[in-house]
Amino acid sequence: MKSKLSIVKIGGNIIEDSAGLVQFLQLFARLPNPKILVHGGGKRATEMANKMGVNSPIIGGRRITDEQGLDVVVMVYAGLLNKNITAQLQAFECNAIGMSGADANTILAHKRPVENIDYGYAGDVDSVSERMITKLLEAKLVPVFCALTHDGKGQLLNTNADTIASELAIGLSTAYDTTLYYCFEKKGVLRDLDDEQSLIHEINTESYKLLLEKKLIADGMLPKLENCFHALQKNVKKVCIGNASMLQPNYQKYTTLTL
Amino acid sequence: MKSKLSIVKIGGNIIEDSAGLVQFLQLFARLPNPKILVHGGGKRATEMANKMGVNSPIIGGRRITDEQGLDVVVMVYAGLLNKNITAQLQAFECNAIGMSGADANTILAHKRPVENIDYGYAGDVDSVSERMITKLLEAKLVPVFCALTHDGKGQLLNTNADTIASELAIGLSTAYDTTLYYCFEKKGVLRDLDDEQSLIHEINTESYKLLLEKKLIADGMLPKLENCFHALQKNVKKVCIGNASMLQPNYQKYTTLTL
Repeated sequence: MKSKLSIVKIGGNIIEDSAGLVQFLQLFARLPNPKILVHGGGKRATEMANKMGVNSPIIGGRRITDEQGLDVVVMVYAGLLNKNITAQLQAFECNAIGMSGADANTILAHKRPVENIDYGYAGDVDSVSERMITKLLEAKLVPVFCALTHDGKGQLLNTNADTIASELAIGLSTAYDTTLYYCFEKKGVLRDLDDEQSLIHEINTESYKLLLEKKLIADGMLPKLENCFHALQKNVKKVCIGNASMLQPNYQKYTTLTL
Repeated sequence: MKSKLSIVKIGGNIIEDSAGLVQFLQLFARLPNPKILVHGGGKRATEMANKMGVNSPIIGGRRITDEQGLDVVVMVYAGLLNKNITAQLQAFECNAIGMSGADANTILAHKRPVENIDYGYAGDVDSVSERMITKLLEAKLVPVFCALTHDGKGQLLNTNADTIASELAIGLSTAYDTTLYYCFEKKGVLRDLDDEQSLIHEINTESYKLLLEKKLIADGMLPKLENCFHALQKNVKKVCIGNASMLQPNYQKYTTLTL
């Protein structure tokens, strides 16, 4: 039987709220090993870019990353956020090791080809090193990935954190029974975005089709869910979407996705 | 017999010159494993602080690191420099893993007590995790340390890169025959700072005393040498001081320090 592995992704809103972040990290630290954390940080990067007078536009939810913009996200994601999260987890006796995809050659990507839009130094994931990440997990380390990959030729690339989380989950599913947790500000997938009571507890392939047909899924949630079902089709065992409380034992108010 | 371990520290001047840095990293990549790289980056941090309007004064060669100043060094050291060096080493097929002392709880420090000067978030090293770093080395990884440590309570600390290199060398000397390389812009310890021909090839405890008595050592070099002899007294096998060419096979124009 394969060991269970939890991969938890936290979004920008949890990171922005420093008290909330500490509370989340305490919950994460209590999860049993092996586990992996993936974090974004786009809002903080945008703030820093503004502060430095660097133009870093976002089109259709995706950042256009020129050379200066890449420097900013590398500083904010891999420096400011990743190292402070790592130090905080250490304080909670969770032996975190902060990483980008370049570290230990864990996530290889290629620069997104220019079609209608030139996204600049944006990376689409090619492969995840199951062997190396497994070695780190076996050493009882807890990898904390920021949203950066590399092309193997010396170039760092900005990569969507949701994608990194799902690619890690897919890449490690041969070795582990992998559950992917997406933590954000809402309780989960809601029928009505303004009503936390409208939480959908379970979605499978069939009910997902129905929700799509009835157009019951909000636009912002669509790419997230596509990403989740893609992971499930690639042997990830379970995907959970909810707020940080989801990591509490016996907490049940979140959305579970299965095939 | 213990395995040989090379610990190489590069200073700001090599980092500032991007062509020189790539050349250096190529030499470093060719060194046999196990090996560790340690890098500073103070000049780049000062530039970035100026750009962001953050005051980050340096007194007696040491930075006063307030909260904002710490954010800047964390972004520059652990983000910009550490990740670009790591990605570049990967391109040279050196399986680098970029780290701070918080990562994998490798270097614990305490905030320097306030005496005459309050250095702010400056850390003095307490301990190095030989066990964890050995695990990484045994996994054929090449740790790349930036000049940051942590206090185990969630606080990152700015720590002199020369000190990090010597503390790593000392901490790993039980397990390894450790050679410490300090790479900077000069050929090594010079009798006359303006004359590269005045290189002193070898210094041991006795000749060091003589050089001190005759006041033949430049002020800037004194703390470096103190640091080196401290490491030798704590079982580091050999310390070499010179420019990046020192890492070339059969190159001999550098200073070797032994007890």
